Amino acid sequence: MPVGVDVVLASGSPRRRELLTALGWGFRAVVPQIDETPRPGEAPEALCARLARMKADSVAIREGNALVIAADTVVVMNRDILGKPRDKSEGLKMILSLQGRTHEVLTGLSLRWRKRALDAVERTRVTFRPLNETAARAYAATGEGMDKAGAYAIQGKGSLLVSSIKGDYFNVVGLPLCKLGAMVGELGLSLPSLWT
Amino acid sequence: MPVGVDVVLASGSPRRRELLTALGWGFRAVVPQIDETPRPGEAPEALCARLARMKADSVAIREGNALVIAADTVVVMNRDILGKPRDKSEGLKMILSLQGRTHEVLTGLSLRWRKRALDAVERTRVTFRPLNETAARAYAATGEGMDKAGAYAIQGKGSLLVSSIKGDYFNVVGLPLCKLGAMVGELGLSLPSLWT
Repeated sequence: MPVGVDVVLASGSPRRRELLTALGWGFRAVVPQIDETPRPGEAPEALCARLARMKADSVAIREGNALVIAADTVVVMNRDILGKPRDKSEGLKMILSLQGRTHEVLTGLSLRWRKRALDAVERTRVTFRPLNETAARAYAATGEGMDKAGAYAIQGKGSLLVSSIKGDYFNVVGLPLCKLGAMVGELGLSLPSLWT
Repeated sequence: MPVGVDVVLASGSPRRRELLTALGWGFRAVVPQIDETPRPGEAPEALCARLARMKADSVAIREGNALVIAADTVVVMNRDILGKPRDKSEGLKMILSLQGRTHEVLTGLSLRWRKRALDAVERTRVTFRPLNETAARAYAATGEGMDKAGAYAIQGKGSLLVSSIKGDYFNVVGLPLCKLGAMVGELGLSLPSLWT
């Protein structure tokens, strides 16, 4: 942590907290209260960018001296946004729709620091290996994907389903770390100070 | 763990143990005792394939009833194999040689199960973002890469250096999990039983 920099993660996601912790950054987490409803016809990239901005702004207004980090991740198959499954049956349907094909994970990332705002969208392509219904059903039955968009966790047992990705792995987990590091650098907060 | 299947990880690597633990598989770890010296002129893919086979065979001979899993990972830049750095100064040199460029991580993966042997090599391309010397020096100073081939840990603070990968992320950590799952399936040990 750089001296005098108070880092606030505007997110309730335990995965994002774990990722930031692994970087060795000290931070506080604040859960943003925003309306996450998509607008009619809103494209996935526009949606995750807008929600990340709203999360960042809603927290920055109360945390004027902090570096505020906000993110919003969407899973997209054929331009359809896959949310969190309602139950295991819907989870199984999602896994079957993803198997043997490539989908995209997009994360909107927004930083607020004093008077400055930086916003970006990071995109990763994810390819599932072909799965028969028995394997898909076995994965869905683990329940691991129930609280996750797209009904899988790449960092857990879902690693057995993902044959290949193209882009930043951590973007799929929920926070594009390399982009985050580059944006923090753009704000003049150098890596050395953030690693102290 | 499938009933009656004893899984043995032929590896002393703490990262591989963590990955297999995250899958929820019960297993024992046995450290293989082999000579890891490359042969003169041996290509990286041949080397990691041969060492994985040797590790698997050396453990399988003593564990006749177990499913034995062995792996060997090499980091390759311009056909040169990057080993573990001898000190922080060599670590810094490696990070500077990787920054702004793409290298490859190859893992040989060998399974032994009763009379059957399966062997494969998984390849992932890893691209570092451009880094100035200050940032590279700051990363090397963390010491995180000291016990790792290529002098970085993609799963740690090194995540800030890697802008993109193409392939299986877990292959870069040291064990290609999706390939492992597929090979375990080839042996007739299905995912459901392995997730029990």
